Amino acid sequence: MSYYAVTVEKLIDEFKKMPGVGYKSAQRLAFYVLGLPNEKAKKLADVIMEAKEKITYCTICCNLTDENPCKICTDVKRDKSTICVVENPSDVVALEKTREYRGLYHVLHGVISPMDGIKPDDIKIKELIQRLASDEVKEVIIATNPNVEGEATASYIARLLTGFGIKVTRIAKGIPIGSDIEYADEITLLKALENRTEI
Amino acid sequence: MSYYAVTVEKLIDEFKKMPGVGYKSAQRLAFYVLGLPNEKAKKLADVIMEAKEKITYCTICCNLTDENPCKICTDVKRDKSTICVVENPSDVVALEKTREYRGLYHVLHGVISPMDGIKPDDIKIKELIQRLASDEVKEVIIATNPNVEGEATASYIARLLTGFGIKVTRIAKGIPIGSDIEYADEITLLKALENRTEI
Repeated sequence: MSYYAVTVEKLIDEFKKMPGVGYKSAQRLAFYVLGLPNEKAKKLADVIMEAKEKITYCTICCNLTDENPCKICTDVKRDKSTICVVENPSDVVALEKTREYRGLYHVLHGVISPMDGIKPDDIKIKELIQRLASDEVKEVIIATNPNVEGEATASYIARLLTGFGIKVTRIAKGIPIGSDIEYADEITLLKALENRTEI
Repeated sequence: MSYYAVTVEKLIDEFKKMPGVGYKSAQRLAFYVLGLPNEKAKKLADVIMEAKEKITYCTICCNLTDENPCKICTDVKRDKSTICVVENPSDVVALEKTREYRGLYHVLHGVISPMDGIKPDDIKIKELIQRLASDEVKEVIIATNPNVEGEATASYIARLLTGFGIKVTRIAKGIPIGSDIEYADEITLLKALENRTEI
C-alpha cells in the first residue's frame, strides 16, 4: 500500500532507481524537489533533458562530451603518443586533477565482468584497437581499477596489444600516500613490496 | 576549472544542490542519467514537472496531496476527534505504517528554530489553530521529533492550545524496542525511568 499521493510515489520511485539511492534517500530527494520553486524544478528537468540531448561519446576517446571530438582529443598541446585507458569518465577527471598527465585517454565505459554478463564487446575495446591502428601511439597506460574485473580487463587488453609494437604499462599498485602501513591490507602490502623501487 | 563537458557539469551541479548529495554522489547520479535510454530520462524529467504541477498542500492538514482535501482528511472511517501534529510528510508515512493510528494529521512542514531563522509563523501552526476552532477535536497528539527544536515546538504549541479545552499529549520518549539498555544514552534512559509504567 502506498502512503503517499500517487504523484509523490512516482517521483520517489524515479529517484529510487538511481544508484546508491534507497527508499529513504529517494523520499528526501522527492521532498526536496517538491519544495523547490517552480522555476528551479523546471531547471532541473530541463538540465536532465539538455544533457541527454547534447552529451555524446567522443568518437575518438569515447569520453562524454558536448563537442565532438572532445576538448582533450583536439587539444594540440597534449601528447598524442600516450593513451591512458580508464573505466569511466570520472576516472578521466581524477587523472586530470593530478595536472601531470598530458597524454590522451580512452574510456572503456565498464570492465569485462562475466559475472555481470559484460563481455569484451560490450565495452569500448574495439574502439581502442581502431585508434592504435591509425594513431601515432607509442604507449598505452592501463588504468582500470585494481580489483578482479579491472585486472582481468587490463590483462585482456595487454594481450590484445601484443604485436602492435606499442609499450603497454599498468599504473603502479602499492600503499597510498598518507596511509598507515599498519592498516594496509595484505595484498596491497605484498604489491608494495614486490614493486619496491630503489632510492 | 571544470574537467567535464559544460552540460555534464551543469547536471552534476543540479544534483549537488540536493540534500545529502555531495560531489561524488552528484557525479554518480549524473552518469546514471546520461546512461539512461532517452525515454527513461524524459520520464524522470516529466515526473519531476508533473509532481510540481499536481502536488499541493491539503487545505485541511497541510500534508502533500494530489487531491484536495487529501485522502486521509476525507476518509469517513477515520477518527476526526484526534489530530496528530508532525514535522514532515514522511512522519505521516511512518505513523501510518503502525496501522494503529486512525485519527487525522497536521503537518507543520518544519519546526521552530531561531538558529535557522524559522519562526512560528514560518510553519503551519496558524493552520492548526484554525482547524481547532472549527473541528470537533478532542485531542492533539504532538509528535515532533524528540530533539531541541522538536521539544521547543511541542511546548510552544501546547502553550497555544491551553484554553481550547482540548487534551494535548506528547508521544512517549523512552528506550526503543529491540535496543540495549547498555547502549542507551543517559537522557533517553532518564526519560525511560521517569515515564515508567506499572505492569
